[in-house]
Amino acid sequence: MNSNNMSKIQIAKAKRLRSTPYTSRIEKQGLTAYTTYNHMLLPAAFEVSLEVSYYHLKEHVQVWDVAAERQVEISGDDSDELVQMMTCRDLSKSKVGRCYYCPIIDDQANLINDPVVLRINKNKWWLSIADSDLILFAKGLAIGKKFKVNIKEPNVDIMAVQGPKSFALMEKIFGKSITELKFFDFDYFDFRGVKHLIARSGWSKQGGYEIYVENTKSGLELYDYLFEIGKEFNVKPGCPHLIERIESALLSYGNDFDLNDNPLECGFDKYVNLDSDVEFLGKEKLKQIKAAGVSKKLMGIMIDLNRINLSRALDITIDNKIVGELRSAVYSPTFNQVIGIAMIKKPFFEIDTSVEIIIDKVTKTGKLCNIPFV
Amino acid sequence: MNSNNMSKIQIAKAKRLRSTPYTSRIEKQGLTAYTTYNHMLLPAAFEVSLEVSYYHLKEHVQVWDVAAERQVEISGDDSDELVQMMTCRDLSKSKVGRCYYCPIIDDQANLINDPVVLRINKNKWWLSIADSDLILFAKGLAIGKKFKVNIKEPNVDIMAVQGPKSFALMEKIFGKSITELKFFDFDYFDFRGVKHLIARSGWSKQGGYEIYVENTKSGLELYDYLFEIGKEFNVKPGCPHLIERIESALLSYGNDFDLNDNPLECGFDKYVNLDSDVEFLGKEKLKQIKAAGVSKKLMGIMIDLNRINLSRALDITIDNKIVGELRSAVYSPTFNQVIGIAMIKKPFFEIDTSVEIIIDKVTKTGKLCNIPFV
Repeated sequence: MNSNNMSKIQIAKAKRLRSTPYTSRIEKQGLTAYTTYNHMLLPAAFEVSLEVSYYHLKEHVQVWDVAAERQVEISGDDSDELVQMMTCRDLSKSKVGRCYYCPIIDDQANLINDPVVLRINKNKWWLSIADSDLILFAKGLAIGKKFKVNIKEPNVDIMAVQGPKSFALMEKIFGKSITELKFFDFDYFDFRGVKHLIARSGWSKQGGYEIYVENTKSGLELYDYLFEIGKEFNVKPGCPHLIERIESALLSYGNDFDLNDNPLECGFDKYVNLDSDVEFLGKEKLKQIKAAGVSKKLMGIMIDLNRINLSRALDITIDNKIVGELRSAVYSPTFNQVIGIAMIKKPFFEIDTSVEIIIDKVTKTGKLCNIPFV
Repeated sequence: MNSNNMSKIQIAKAKRLRSTPYTSRIEKQGLTAYTTYNHMLLPAAFEVSLEVSYYHLKEHVQVWDVAAERQVEISGDDSDELVQMMTCRDLSKSKVGRCYYCPIIDDQANLINDPVVLRINKNKWWLSIADSDLILFAKGLAIGKKFKVNIKEPNVDIMAVQGPKSFALMEKIFGKSITELKFFDFDYFDFRGVKHLIARSGWSKQGGYEIYVENTKSGLELYDYLFEIGKEFNVKPGCPHLIERIESALLSYGNDFDLNDNPLECGFDKYVNLDSDVEFLGKEKLKQIKAAGVSKKLMGIMIDLNRINLSRALDITIDNKIVGELRSAVYSPTFNQVIGIAMIKKPFFEIDTSVEIIIDKVTKTGKLCNIPFV
């Protein structure tokens, strides 16, 4: 997701930055940069330019090592209560076989993570997490509340198959039924006698699947088979893509929002179910925030620039007064300029507002807009 | 801490892997590799070999950007109770101005982190953390227990001054009194009118200080001044050092132990105060483990090899039976062979036990020993 921010500085490997089952394969396939995510290596670039991989993702199909999307498994009698307590999304009608995007918040409504939550069965959930140790928050709450739950990180290493040709590729392996899976549904599919949980999901808007590999040996055979059988679809290795994810406004925890932001500031309104009967942390706080109106808000921004390498937030100003900060940005070939995600203070978060950003000591102009960009 | 594990693969920067106030300085000073730690960049190597920096650290003085050692600040009426609940070390007699190395465990006595805990004042603590989001565990517990506490990550960016000449260098800036600070004591010292919290501590056994910089502007001036005034002591930029830390058995969370290990397995016995009156999570569990004896234990290992690049745990075997795993390892010029930290199963954790490890498809022999090595 940072594929253009090449620093020319190496990553020092250690056990602490865990490898994935696919690590040796992606390194042979031309990996050139890693980021880290949930204490694990996440590929960030291969031997092609960011633009080449962007068009490839939008036209063909890629296989991604996203094992760094770790699972927090919560099971046991009180698992429903614990999972619901952590999210402002009403899960009371949730169904086995469905994925739910869920902002996780604390008692002050600050964001702790934004996993995709899978209801595995009646008393078992997987929270497919962004980059923070949600398992520790869940453990702390469960201990404090004396809940009867079992919380662990299971051995699940996701590979994603993304791009418009992912449907044809996956059909060739798993048959017609996998193309009938609805968006954010999951089911079990057979590969050479081994069942794999596969969801129609993924961190791009180009369509595709995430394969939650529990049987590593079978998963590695499947990885190799995807490349073997995928030649006719021009399959390539890839990774979450900075241009595509900003254009699509797939927000990134730690980049676009964190523990200092709440879901209403991030535009997660439809996942904030304040009128529901369910109890969750921060509910009263969110009601107060909603009544008073948010004091800052995530917006899109178009900047008069054709190149940027963002490695920290940059101040956004109007008449030298700080009105917000730029949190993610990339050059978009679609818009032929830099686009970004910015947190903007009240009352400046109106579309078409002109703003300024100082980049490399030069003042650049930008304009606020809605997200997603496409 | 991984300085020899050069992967030739770049790190992709992003806001999510936070820069520190010192980042631009260390990059100008010849930084060649980063690791990440607490969602932040931690320097891992400069433009000198691992051995050159090893001897330099043991003979001269280095300044380290260890801002990635983040603080979890816990304050308020119930702060004592929350901090004590999380650690098996008895803190009932703890004093303001002292540092305490504290294993943090959950209700099953599994290790969550191993911070140095600073008692800032009667109702305020800083937990100077290893690489896991301890703030989320503390928040979960506090919410579950309805504790009256305030938990946050303050703006504190540590720089460490390490090596035998650190005392002379620091005396030149702060005067004689700083040399009288006892190991693991801290106090406030003046630099050009700004008070800085300085502890006699650091992640090496070569002596030195950690400066907990809250005033960034002053901290950066101090950083530059340390290099200016330190020329006569041959000061260099550095970072936690893989050889030195393994020789000294400064254990690393995520490398040598994690959520699957307990303090008794890691040799933290003197910080496990089961006979004290204080209550903490996992106390009964630890009593059971102690009574039954541990089922595995961290040991040193000397391996018949003169080079290793460890990026994942390796199986340790006796007669083809797995008896443990190698978790950290490096070539030590002092011992003229590879030394490492290994978790060994009962009953094989006896010193002088001969073991085997398959590295790059070749079987190598090793011998178990006590730690630290020096």
